[in-house]
Amino acid sequence: MYSVCSVGTPPEKISSLQNPRVKQLVKLRDRRPRDVAGVFMVEGYRQIRRALEKDVTLQELYFCPDWFLGENETALIAQAKESGALLIELSKDAFAKVAYRERPDGLLALAPQWRNTLDDLKLSTEPFLLVVEAIEKPGNLGTILRSADAAGCDGVIVCDPVTDIFNPNVVRASTGVLFSVPLVVAESEQVHEWLKSKNIRTVATTPAAEKLYTETDLRGSMAVIMGSEQYGLSDFWLQNADAPVRIPMAGQADSLNVAMATIITLFEAVRQRDQ
Amino acid sequence: MYSVCSVGTPPEKISSLQNPRVKQLVKLRDRRPRDVAGVFMVEGYRQIRRALEKDVTLQELYFCPDWFLGENETALIAQAKESGALLIELSKDAFAKVAYRERPDGLLALAPQWRNTLDDLKLSTEPFLLVVEAIEKPGNLGTILRSADAAGCDGVIVCDPVTDIFNPNVVRASTGVLFSVPLVVAESEQVHEWLKSKNIRTVATTPAAEKLYTETDLRGSMAVIMGSEQYGLSDFWLQNADAPVRIPMAGQADSLNVAMATIITLFEAVRQRDQ
Repeated sequence: MYSVCSVGTPPEKISSLQNPRVKQLVKLRDRRPRDVAGVFMVEGYRQIRRALEKDVTLQELYFCPDWFLGENETALIAQAKESGALLIELSKDAFAKVAYRERPDGLLALAPQWRNTLDDLKLSTEPFLLVVEAIEKPGNLGTILRSADAAGCDGVIVCDPVTDIFNPNVVRASTGVLFSVPLVVAESEQVHEWLKSKNIRTVATTPAAEKLYTETDLRGSMAVIMGSEQYGLSDFWLQNADAPVRIPMAGQADSLNVAMATIITLFEAVRQRDQ
Repeated sequence: MYSVCSVGTPPEKISSLQNPRVKQLVKLRDRRPRDVAGVFMVEGYRQIRRALEKDVTLQELYFCPDWFLGENETALIAQAKESGALLIELSKDAFAKVAYRERPDGLLALAPQWRNTLDDLKLSTEPFLLVVEAIEKPGNLGTILRSADAAGCDGVIVCDPVTDIFNPNVVRASTGVLFSVPLVVAESEQVHEWLKSKNIRTVATTPAAEKLYTETDLRGSMAVIMGSEQYGLSDFWLQNADAPVRIPMAGQADSLNVAMATIITLFEAVRQRDQ
């Protein structure tokens, strides 16, 4: 099992900001060290609880009672220990240094990264998928994962990623849904071929479409395709999607961001599919 | 006209972090000094452009070319000056101190606060309103304003506010929609009486409702009522709303936050009303 550094048994409590574990945790905010180590940070009570609920093996759990906000932290720590996590206490200052949040809650874990492929997705008889292209902001990607979870999507496919799915802000904004929504990272062309092979129709939102999303059949085997914040859908998906649709906009042209457009489209699909 | 301090003509360029204008701008992050001064901060190109488009009188415009991100700042500054704003240049350090954003774009203006009453709302023949109760997070309130703008609401009524509508994060998250969506702050009981007097039905979302939001008539004169993040709808609105509705949830119970639930409900209303 990966350990954040190879200095053997940790001391009872780490106070030094120069401790190698503290330094390495700070590095894990960046993608490259995360990928090299094959781990990512799960910060906060809610997120860690979700990970444990989904039987994610937490490798290390850093905690600092000085930052605790509630009363259930001790039970959560015991649960993490039981599942095999190495427990390490940090001083208040050391925790503040490793925490990604401005107001930490004294809990931060390391979990192993995973890689799913398209064929790992367990599809229902009439698959309902979300495909997002090159999302830039981690907060948007996290919100989008929550939306897919709430709408009951079979999975989310992230094409041509700009944002790492293990970015601390994705974990945070997803409120731990990252651990429950099946998530695949892949290239657009590969995704398009795979969807075609499974007879899954693609519905792509773009302001240029003539048809409203509410006038389009969103039932049956179907994937909603969403473009990036800045550039919208790529030419590839504009040309290859089966049905372009648009969301009517009453106000300023940029009032809906990609996360808002996603949830509107997914819940219209839910409405149609539940009828 | 209010000025951020009474030291007369400002110098050509402020560099001192001890300058009274710099100190006062920092204070305006808090509600009380904002209310006393009757002004609020509008930070960022997009937000300031929206204010000018809506003929908001910017009183002072602080700028710092060292932080500019684009090429249109000069034109915007000229437009602000023409509309009557006092221009004040800040050094890079001074701007960083007054900026609320982590990555400022070198533009920050002061605008006068306003107070609308319910009777200021210009209602269409079949009013479509959004009422939000005690929203706690400024970012959520800003996103909710964007949603109401995109859905074409006649106005947004903020009941029993916890978050000041002039909080810098509301201005930011609203991307300037604060200047275009008619916005009223009032007490719940007063709002209920007023809606009744106008024959406007109230539709309140709560997980306890039996009926789905998609099975409920959202056409005609109607106000959507949304509760706070932590507590949901108050007993007052649960008892007094005409129709309680719920949004179906497939995933984790807390996957939808109040901003997401609001946009889902508003766009279902748009769908029904456009038929």
